[in-house]
Amino acid sequence: MALLPDHLLAGHKAFMSGRYRTEEQRYRELARAGQEPETLVIACCDSRAAPETIFDAAPGELFVIRNVANLMPPYSPDGEYHATSAALEFAVQALKVKHIVVLGHGRCGGIKAALDPESKPLSPGDFIGKWMSMVEAPAKIVRGNELMTAGERQTALERISIRFSLANLRSFPCVSILEGKGRLTLHGAWFDISTGELWAMDPETGDFQRPVIDIPDPDPAA
Amino acid sequence: MALLPDHLLAGHKAFMSGRYRTEEQRYRELARAGQEPETLVIACCDSRAAPETIFDAAPGELFVIRNVANLMPPYSPDGEYHATSAALEFAVQALKVKHIVVLGHGRCGGIKAALDPESKPLSPGDFIGKWMSMVEAPAKIVRGNELMTAGERQTALERISIRFSLANLRSFPCVSILEGKGRLTLHGAWFDISTGELWAMDPETGDFQRPVIDIPDPDPAA
Amino acid sequence: MALLPDHLLAGHKAFMSGRYRTEEQRYRELARAGQEPETLVIACCDSRAAPETIFDAAPGELFVIRNVANLMPPYSPDGEYHATSAALEFAVQALKVKHIVVLGHGRCGGIKAALDPESKPLSPGDFIGKWMSMVEAPAKIVRGNELMTAGERQTALERISIRFSLANLRSFPCVSILEGKGRLTLHGAWFDISTGELWAMDPETGDFQRPVIDIPDPDPAA
Amino acid sequence: MALLPDHLLAGHKAFMSGRYRTEEQRYRELARAGQEPETLVIACCDSRAAPETIFDAAPGELFVIRNVANLMPPYSPDGEYHATSAALEFAVQALKVKHIVVLGHGRCGGIKAALDPESKPLSPGDFIGKWMSMVEAPAKIVRGNELMTAGERQTALERISIRFSLANLRSFPCVSILEGKGRLTLHGAWFDISTGELWAMDPETGDFQRPVIDIPDPDPAA
Repeated sequence: MALLPDHLLAGHKAFMSGRYRTEEQRYRELARAGQEPETLVIACCDSRAAPETIFDAAPGELFVIRNVANLMPPYSPDGEYHATSAALEFAVQALKVKHIVVLGHGRCGGIKAALDPESKPLSPGDFIGKWMSMVEAPAKIVRGNELMTAGERQTALERISIRFSLANLRSFPCVSILEGKGRLTLHGAWFDISTGELWAMDPETGDFQRPVIDIPDPDPAA
Repeated sequence: MALLPDHLLAGHKAFMSGRYRTEEQRYRELARAGQEPETLVIACCDSRAAPETIFDAAPGELFVIRNVANLMPPYSPDGEYHATSAALEFAVQALKVKHIVVLGHGRCGGIKAALDPESKPLSPGDFIGKWMSMVEAPAKIVRGNELMTAGERQTALERISIRFSLANLRSFPCVSILEGKGRLTLHGAWFDISTGELWAMDPETGDFQRPVIDIPDPDPAA
Repeated sequence: MALLPDHLLAGHKAFMSGRYRTEEQRYRELARAGQEPETLVIACCDSRAAPETIFDAAPGELFVIRNVANLMPPYSPDGEYHATSAALEFAVQALKVKHIVVLGHGRCGGIKAALDPESKPLSPGDFIGKWMSMVEAPAKIVRGNELMTAGERQTALERISIRFSLANLRSFPCVSILEGKGRLTLHGAWFDISTGELWAMDPETGDFQRPVIDIPDPDPAA
Repeated sequence: MALLPDHLLAGHKAFMSGRYRTEEQRYRELARAGQEPETLVIACCDSRAAPETIFDAAPGELFVIRNVANLMPPYSPDGEYHATSAALEFAVQALKVKHIVVLGHGRCGGIKAALDPESKPLSPGDFIGKWMSMVEAPAKIVRGNELMTAGERQTALERISIRFSLANLRSFPCVSILEGKGRLTLHGAWFDISTGELWAMDPETGDFQRPVIDIPDPDPAA
């Protein structure tokens, strides 16, 4: 039997003859000098919303946490294992990123489960149930609004959760201190899988809008 | 000020005029029908080792967890928030993935911290210290071998940690049961940032080797 | 009965009609003027790792010591027979080589014996046991790491032994003096039998890496 | 600075694109299954007399000891490090070779030193002096024969030394026992660097002769 699934073997072969071949010097330099990403992205595990794809990112560009529903838990220094807090700490304190982006997306399975009143544990451990209970308070309110469609409730909680994660980020002393000094900026964004569009959060109002900003082509002469 | 960092705005613009344009039908279909990834990848947050890049993955292809040092904690249904366990549960029970790949990589900052005897907390919460303490037992053994170079110790612990995570995966009843039935396969892999090469773990011996398997060119006629 | 095994007779016949025919002038000149190799290689007896093959060497190019596990014993001028030290002395003092390469390789039987806790003497003289006891101290440490696979322990000791032999080389006054004067350079290398690749040791870190150095094609115009 | 001398880097590159490319399957199989050479060759370190070259040997074909003047020391199980005895033991007891060839050659520097009455130590350790003292008894007799030319004395001692090494081989119990059972055959050979010819020793008389045996071409139809 193959040591890896065929689709990964074929994919890595394409990587080697494609991207790696054109970016070999960058990879070698990144290996030698270490990574210096400017941006941390907290994204969802969803197979349709990889930040590197959505942002056409180069190697070394994005430090990426991915968990279900791109949630940032609140600051809780209790000595337990905290995957997300550990990665945040590493990004902010060791890599000194300048930006943190909480990247949500449409049709998120975790958010959908949080909104489903008949949702049952997926297994006896009910890890998803516990994880999504982090947003149970807003989920309960959204569930109660029967004037919104199911789709509207889904988008609403997706965006509420992004603002909730941004608030939790600011509960970490290292984040709030650096943000206060102007050395760290927090952002919210939401990706529409169907249209490919990106909606960015206005930090003043919390609203999501698009197109985010019109920027010139990298090489307008091309 | 821009709502998102310039490099992300430029990147998303490139995505829209590039990948999205060529794969619009696939995105629209993935939005409509939902994701059905065959493979869960547990990878590191490192900016140089994104699975979608390494595996040249299409949208919808990989469900991806990313935490520091691609660690899978042991089964611990204690009612706490478990980012990694929740995502695992979702992938296995809701999405019914057929493969789980623990993807490590060289020059991992988390592993390096675990091996540094003078490593200090990055912040008062010491989230990284706690998170990496998951592999403290093997790290202690590896640290003690001063006949290996720092680079060799690093690679050794990176690979030991992959085997450790695979063992922890099997501590989840849903994983071991499905593996026993032949419906789920576990894999280990290690990415060399410098050379771009992928080393795959032999499930019998635990050794890492490359090339993983010789597969025909995706399109030999091209 | 034939005076030599058939495979050697056939091989020598191929040599005469092949390499000797094309290099007759070089052989005649080497016989007349004597050898002037620039490089001493200390290699293993293993039938799969001949330096002349691996380095596609011309006659006169490499002065080669081969013993089990390519070990250089420490300087020990005690009047006993020292095959390896004698050959080293000849290479450095009589031939004045400019380079010494300790060439290890994967899957080395001597290293494997040193790592096998149940290894028994091959004969009452136990010459292999005594010879490999030269690296018993590191072998003991490596054997103790049960978190590494047998294959990983093997590679680790192979590389540690190369560094050990390099240190022993420097215990010879003639080596350390000439190295200090910049007239002799020491190198470590490790050959992967399966892939054919050569890993070269970084003298600063002791790490092994490949490709050693990108050099232009011997004949780019071809 | 390059990690290895340029001539070795270029040579290995030629190996990879030449011999390894055509024999990759054999290398991979030799790595997987281990070596099973039929023949041990005890040869000289001399850069002009590599057995793999002289015998056009394939990977896996020859297990090779190389020391100065291709000497086999007598059986001496005294607990010291014996490079040559250890390799012999490994070849005979672990690999179970069927043939042992002591391969001498013309213009041997070690033999020349043994014959030079004014030879001085190459270094304070005098390792070559000690090593070649193994054949001091015959060297003294040959030196005393002033009716032979210097060249004739050189060839004479080269051939006497081959017979001396064959006798020492038989002082090892494992060798004499297996030879007695017909499972191991000992051979002497002498390579003429200038003409490329191989002279094989007649086991009855000890004489060296050529051509050793006429054998058909491997592929007479070619």
